[in-house]
Amino acid sequence: MRVVDHTHDPQARSWIDSANSSAAEFPPQNLPLGVFQAGGLPRIGVAIGDRVICLGTLAAAGLFSDPLGVAIHDHVDLTGLMSLAVEARTQLRRQLFELVTNPQSRLATDIALQQAALHRLADVQMLKPVEVGDYTDFYASLYHATNVGSMFRPDNPLLPNWKHLPIGYHGRASSLVVSGTEIRRPHGQLPSAQEGAAPTFGPCRQLDYELEVGAYIALGNRLGEPISLGAAEDYLFGITLVNDWSARDMQRWEYQPLGPFLAKSFATSVSPWVVTMEALAPFRAPAFERAADDPAPLPYLQSPGNAESGGIQLQLEVSLLTDAMRQQGLGPQRLSLGSFGSMYWTLAQMLTHHTSNGCNMQPGDLIASGTVSGPTRQSRGCLLELTWDGECGKPVPGTQRTPLKFPTGEERLFLAAGDEVVIRGWCEHPQRRTIHLGECRGRVI
Amino acid sequence: MRVVDHTHDPQARSWIDSANSSAAEFPPQNLPLGVFQAGGLPRIGVAIGDRVICLGTLAAAGLFSDPLGVAIHDHVDLTGLMSLAVEARTQLRRQLFELVTNPQSRLATDIALQQAALHRLADVQMLKPVEVGDYTDFYASLYHATNVGSMFRPDNPLLPNWKHLPIGYHGRASSLVVSGTEIRRPHGQLPSAQEGAAPTFGPCRQLDYELEVGAYIALGNRLGEPISLGAAEDYLFGITLVNDWSARDMQRWEYQPLGPFLAKSFATSVSPWVVTMEALAPFRAPAFERAADDPAPLPYLQSPGNAESGGIQLQLEVSLLTDAMRQQGLGPQRLSLGSFGSMYWTLAQMLTHHTSNGCNMQPGDLIASGTVSGPTRQSRGCLLELTWDGECGKPVPGTQRTPLKFPTGEERLFLAAGDEVVIRGWCEHPQRRTIHLGECRGRVI
Repeated sequence: MRVVDHTHDPQARSWIDSANSSAAEFPPQNLPLGVFQAGGLPRIGVAIGDRVICLGTLAAAGLFSDPLGVAIHDHVDLTGLMSLAVEARTQLRRQLFELVTNPQSRLATDIALQQAALHRLADVQMLKPVEVGDYTDFYASLYHATNVGSMFRPDNPLLPNWKHLPIGYHGRASSLVVSGTEIRRPHGQLPSAQEGAAPTFGPCRQLDYELEVGAYIALGNRLGEPISLGAAEDYLFGITLVNDWSARDMQRWEYQPLGPFLAKSFATSVSPWVVTMEALAPFRAPAFERAADDPAPLPYLQSPGNAESGGIQLQLEVSLLTDAMRQQGLGPQRLSLGSFGSMYWTLAQMLTHHTSNGCNMQPGDLIASGTVSGPTRQSRGCLLELTWDGECGKPVPGTQRTPLKFPTGEERLFLAAGDEVVIRGWCEHPQRRTIHLGECRGRVI
Repeated sequence: MRVVDHTHDPQARSWIDSANSSAAEFPPQNLPLGVFQAGGLPRIGVAIGDRVICLGTLAAAGLFSDPLGVAIHDHVDLTGLMSLAVEARTQLRRQLFELVTNPQSRLATDIALQQAALHRLADVQMLKPVEVGDYTDFYASLYHATNVGSMFRPDNPLLPNWKHLPIGYHGRASSLVVSGTEIRRPHGQLPSAQEGAAPTFGPCRQLDYELEVGAYIALGNRLGEPISLGAAEDYLFGITLVNDWSARDMQRWEYQPLGPFLAKSFATSVSPWVVTMEALAPFRAPAFERAADDPAPLPYLQSPGNAESGGIQLQLEVSLLTDAMRQQGLGPQRLSLGSFGSMYWTLAQMLTHHTSNGCNMQPGDLIASGTVSGPTRQSRGCLLELTWDGECGKPVPGTQRTPLKFPTGEERLFLAAGDEVVIRGWCEHPQRRTIHLGECRGRVI
């Protein structure tokens, strides 16, 4: 018997009023998961309207049967839920949807339970949703790779391997921080302007952000047992916003031959909410359409399902809030607006490639997409690209970098002290309730 | 009052006879720590002669005061001990030394305790000593970097940054395995022999090992708070042998521009025993002597202490045992004999550089040295170098790779099915008892 899934019904409303506003980021169709603190220990929660529901409290009240109950009860982060099979994850979504939409549900009617379980989002502190074991960063935007490649290697912007495999590298897991954590400008070796001269050591002068989308891994696989592309979607738990802070001067000096290291490992911010793959189902889209003369992916990176719906219809916006904007009462100023649809490789392809050598993933591991940049100037996902004078791999001859200008009179080539980068993401579709990923913020100190 | 340290006394003998043989790898001066299993749960142990002493049993008998007791009792690996300050670590060594050398010690005299705590090494299974959070791999041998660089980039073997900073990259922590774990030959994208042609996907044809030395991190540092070179030694817990298995064909195709990825992440083997920095004290040696025209390290990578004793006098041997050798009753055949003294950067310099951007280390994180290769042919730490015809960055013109030949008549350019790589390491000094790191083995299947 096929169970009909009502959890995407655009008409569904919650008895929690704030979830029904058209501006609500967390309507009942979303139900993103996170970890919060309200005085005591970290708790697992789901966002609905302007509230967060403590799943631990619901589990203690016996609302979840095992394995869901244990996965919630025995963990202080989402790792337990990420260890569950896709059926249990779907079950959790159905149950949460019922609890927040049915005015006769136990949560709606048991006032004591409601008082214990419901918190205002404004009153809680959001924590990192997962203690990530391994973090991998990909480089999956053709536009980003071509733009950056043409700056670092003018003769050779896109390397011969790029269209054959999702290029990625291992990132630093310990320095993943949750949105809102202040970002200290790193010190490091900076190349000398004069070729052949010795580097200096000091504060980074070219601090940048990178707009990325991350996916947390569910289930995991044993060492030596690859995940096929056909199965890969079941191993994706949900997505999150990522800011891969980058020290460009340090990066340029250190990255050859083994890749970026200290230019990235000083901090990587993640948004607190994880939007599950179940919530994203109505927003799945075809994978990137390759050019006619692009090579076809090798068979292990090809499947009809991936071509049809491996993509995600996801809008992504980056804004900047400077100290002067704060003083003048201005809000964050938009730097870019792009789409995750511009990514050449899908998340499933990244995961399948990652495990194709037998590498084992563990529940809660994080893979990030690499900078999401599109074909237009306004869809570039980092300052390095935004202040560069060129069009997709073709620099404008004789030009310098052009700073961004703001209504405060300020200009930026890279980030200055006090600058706060705000990344936002949302899925919209004419027939659907819009669901949001929340935000990923970080201020440079 | 300065406590006199007797734990290095070369005359010291144990009441456990097997520890006194001149061939003993684990005399009382060594006392390496590891994690073993003898039927039940994983236990923390120390090796002495042909025995392992269960520290958990000693802790339960009240032999350790806190914080040592808790660090042993509450953990199934060495992370607890790695979280302790250097004083507690020194205290542990003194106490273990007393227990195994004093015939009046509680362990020597309490027969019930002895029966519960002492196991034959031959009867136990050794496990991974630590669930590593983050694993970083460096590239710190000038000889290795020059040799490999000249193969991958003939025009440009040693890049301009190399002598200014210890080049490193993030490795994959999940696929770290303990010595003895079988290594599955990975599949992956292999470059076409014909330039510009599409790659193929299949089993790696150029499987290699890399002889490395790893250091486990103690204490850890907070994000944003670098560890100075003067303090770095306190943040090193101890060392281990590492085999950074490498798929050379996959590596050559994938590594630009973000560094090695799947060519390494299918498995990395570590030896089960961790030899503590306290045990290594008599074997410390000056750091590598730089050539007169080499750049001086930047101030943050320089200290008198590091120059005087940042090195470790450590011999390293790699042997190969093939199926044919096994069938003919032959032992492993030596491939190389080298010294950790050939490393251009010290472990402390690697750690200080790693945290110089504020990156946080956690207790139990692993940093590996990169392939240990010396200036001579016989001291090259991987097959890629051993079968290459050249002398430190200078290929012999007109030559091909020359296979290694064995008494069985077998030849090897790279590893074949059934090949077992055995890495061994030991510290020797005329006035000291030799201490061994044990071995790091892995068989290709």
